[in-house]
Amino acid sequence: MKSTIMKTSWQERYHAAEVYTLRCKVLDQPGMLGKLITAIGKTQTHVGNISTSGLDSHNKIRDVQVFCADKQHLTRLLEMVSAIDGIEVLHVNDDVLEMHRRGVIDVKSRVAINNLSDLRMVYTPGVASVCNKIVENPALAWNLTGLCDRVAIVTNGTAVLGLGDIGVSGSLPVMEGKAAIFAEFANISAFPILVDSKKPDEVVETIVRIAAGFGAIQLEDIAAPACFEIEEKLRTKLDIPVFHDDQHGTATVTLATLINALQRTGRKPQNCSAIIAGAGAAGYAIAMILREFGIGDIVVYDSIGPLYAGRTKSMNPYKQKLAKITNPQDIQGYLMEGFKGRDIFIGVARPNMVSKDMIAAMAPRPLVFPLSNPVGEISVDDAYEAGAGVAADGRTINNALAYPGLFRGALDAQARDITLNMQLAAAHTLADLAPEDALLPDMLDKTIHQRVAAAVAKAYV
Amino acid sequence: MKSTIMKTSWQERYHAAEVYTLRCKVLDQPGMLGKLITAIGKTQTHVGNISTSGLDSHNKIRDVQVFCADKQHLTRLLEMVSAIDGIEVLHVNDDVLEMHRRGVIDVKSRVAINNLSDLRMVYTPGVASVCNKIVENPALAWNLTGLCDRVAIVTNGTAVLGLGDIGVSGSLPVMEGKAAIFAEFANISAFPILVDSKKPDEVVETIVRIAAGFGAIQLEDIAAPACFEIEEKLRTKLDIPVFHDDQHGTATVTLATLINALQRTGRKPQNCSAIIAGAGAAGYAIAMILREFGIGDIVVYDSIGPLYAGRTKSMNPYKQKLAKITNPQDIQGYLMEGFKGRDIFIGVARPNMVSKDMIAAMAPRPLVFPLSNPVGEISVDDAYEAGAGVAADGRTINNALAYPGLFRGALDAQARDITLNMQLAAAHTLADLAPEDALLPDMLDKTIHQRVAAAVAKAYV
Repeated sequence: MKSTIMKTSWQERYHAAEVYTLRCKVLDQPGMLGKLITAIGKTQTHVGNISTSGLDSHNKIRDVQVFCADKQHLTRLLEMVSAIDGIEVLHVNDDVLEMHRRGVIDVKSRVAINNLSDLRMVYTPGVASVCNKIVENPALAWNLTGLCDRVAIVTNGTAVLGLGDIGVSGSLPVMEGKAAIFAEFANISAFPILVDSKKPDEVVETIVRIAAGFGAIQLEDIAAPACFEIEEKLRTKLDIPVFHDDQHGTATVTLATLINALQRTGRKPQNCSAIIAGAGAAGYAIAMILREFGIGDIVVYDSIGPLYAGRTKSMNPYKQKLAKITNPQDIQGYLMEGFKGRDIFIGVARPNMVSKDMIAAMAPRPLVFPLSNPVGEISVDDAYEAGAGVAADGRTINNALAYPGLFRGALDAQARDITLNMQLAAAHTLADLAPEDALLPDMLDKTIHQRVAAAVAKAYV
Repeated sequence: MKSTIMKTSWQERYHAAEVYTLRCKVLDQPGMLGKLITAIGKTQTHVGNISTSGLDSHNKIRDVQVFCADKQHLTRLLEMVSAIDGIEVLHVNDDVLEMHRRGVIDVKSRVAINNLSDLRMVYTPGVASVCNKIVENPALAWNLTGLCDRVAIVTNGTAVLGLGDIGVSGSLPVMEGKAAIFAEFANISAFPILVDSKKPDEVVETIVRIAAGFGAIQLEDIAAPACFEIEEKLRTKLDIPVFHDDQHGTATVTLATLINALQRTGRKPQNCSAIIAGAGAAGYAIAMILREFGIGDIVVYDSIGPLYAGRTKSMNPYKQKLAKITNPQDIQGYLMEGFKGRDIFIGVARPNMVSKDMIAAMAPRPLVFPLSNPVGEISVDDAYEAGAGVAADGRTINNALAYPGLFRGALDAQARDITLNMQLAAAHTLADLAPEDALLPDMLDKTIHQRVAAAVAKAYV
């Protein structure tokens, strides 16, 4: 039962993360454009938009967008194209850099300031009456300011994408991208807050001091185990939602996928066992949500082996907690042991660490979710070849399906927390909204996020 | 030489900071609208827009905008209108509250996310190449993110407008209003940062930790003397501009006004003496910029008297500094002593503290700037009656003329500081751009802010 969504072309070019537009001077004769595009195709390059930006008596100027894996790929491509008689590459534009130039978000006024009356209402002296209302009744701040739509995206830059600890400045494009998604998908005003400290208590103290300016806090790309401590302490100290997306966003979308995969392979959660590779932020949260969902037999592996009660090497309080509540069979062997007879594999560890033999050792037609980014623990194709009933990786199981709706719903309910129950509601809604032939709905459909938000707001009590 | 700008009607209704729209059902007969508007005028109320929002066979529905000083004023007005046969007030809308509902700023994506290619460029996996560029060369963060347009508006809510220490939540509408002005006048993405602490060192520490996310810091509505210490320490610790608007914005616009007033009364700064009432944030900064401008003889009064070398009562390090560098004549008497024979009065203290006698005691045709908000130290009319050559208050001398261009210029120059020299350049530009019949240009003219920005950027070395 292979879902068609796993075979779309954007997924095949997933690793082609670099996007360029080649400005080409092409001899104006029939067949020349075909030569150009054929040459590009020969370098295994996907082509995007093609537009004509000029022409003279002998040539057309064509802008051709191409998707490359890296600089070497681009170089090969340019060599191939330049070898054609009648074609000259005039300029190569880096489309991703251009898109991010001056950032991808703006703070805008919702109010035009065209005359002094506007100015005196948006600012002094008129604004004083709004301040006075809030001073009289602080609860009014929620709606008489932008708090009801405002989220801080907080990072300390210690676990950015697959790039690791690159520091706060390097992480800013990611936070801006996330804010752009919040704005486009959920009408949320999210703003990057870069906290330049690796000490959990300093991060907590800083966010507590500035929290009055936000309706919710999204923690992002903070390394484990600091991320657990920071989230736990902030949840205790603040009366607005604090949500570490690398944990709970991932867990929510994973569960949504799992709900559909279980159904399609005729399984019930209470009869299933699972292995999770990775005991970091995502692994911890996935284990927690799977337990809440009713999967009792889970084993979690980290880089040195399975977590079990009594393990002493390379532990932290969060691994201790997992060791206590997972691994009922007390598995202590190598990774292969963890796969034997299990129904579900979820990888949030590192690329290519899982073999076909391991998948083959699982229960028949297992559910295989290698989520490590950008390259999974095993490829989806290999997983199917080894007998997977359903397989999907990080290209399908994307946090951006969950967090816009989760935050929109929490803000709409003026929730003090995003509870596990709200995450379950989001997961069930996403599972329900998936088309027949897919595990998950299309994240570009904005109504999806609205429906997730409505379910999340309703689930808050 | 009275400037016409001091007599426009919006200034007369300056205290009418509350704005309402009355939805009135008016009998559809000629003369009825006249009765309605005449009744409103009898309560000394200014009328804004009038629109017709509906009609039936006997009545028109008219929306009439009115400017009121307070709730009592509105009540009187409603009584007067309701007494007219054939007119019924159906609804009163608080326009200022409506404008501020859900806040006056939004964070928006500059990039439409319409397909997966867009998503993969704005966010993962494409964004990783932008992060990598910044990691390779951290200086690229300035242009490959929104840092080049991004300002934090930082307050701890301790000196908000004329309202005082109302706390951070109550201050948020002011910060949002300021951000809306930044966006509209200077294409700057400014964002409110509310630091919930009255301890200067905690405010400093917090801002230092999150400063990597901003291209400049505007301090706002922080009480003296904490504001001096916070600004001084942040300037030392950060390599981006830190600018306390209540100080330097006010000082810059005051100087711009003074430049034109001096010229019109045929004075030269080096021959002038000044008295400043108020030794808080604005008083300190105005004294500093006047000295830089060449006015050598300045005396500064606080609530207990003049600052002078050797004064011990109610001092702080910033008053000590003023005591050392001002008051060359060592004036130690009551307020009246400070006025005698002086050319310039600048008030940044409290309403109605200056009498006509004091103005009359100054040099002939003195320059009088009572800037206390919303009510000045003396009214402009009284100042003229007492012999002022030029008088203008906080309605004319508005920071919003200076700070958008100052920040835009500093960001464009990627300045590490907003220097006194840049403020002088802004003041001279504003003075130059004022029309013949006014002391200052129209702040609603966006080209003014562009020209200030250009002058400020050029003045940064």
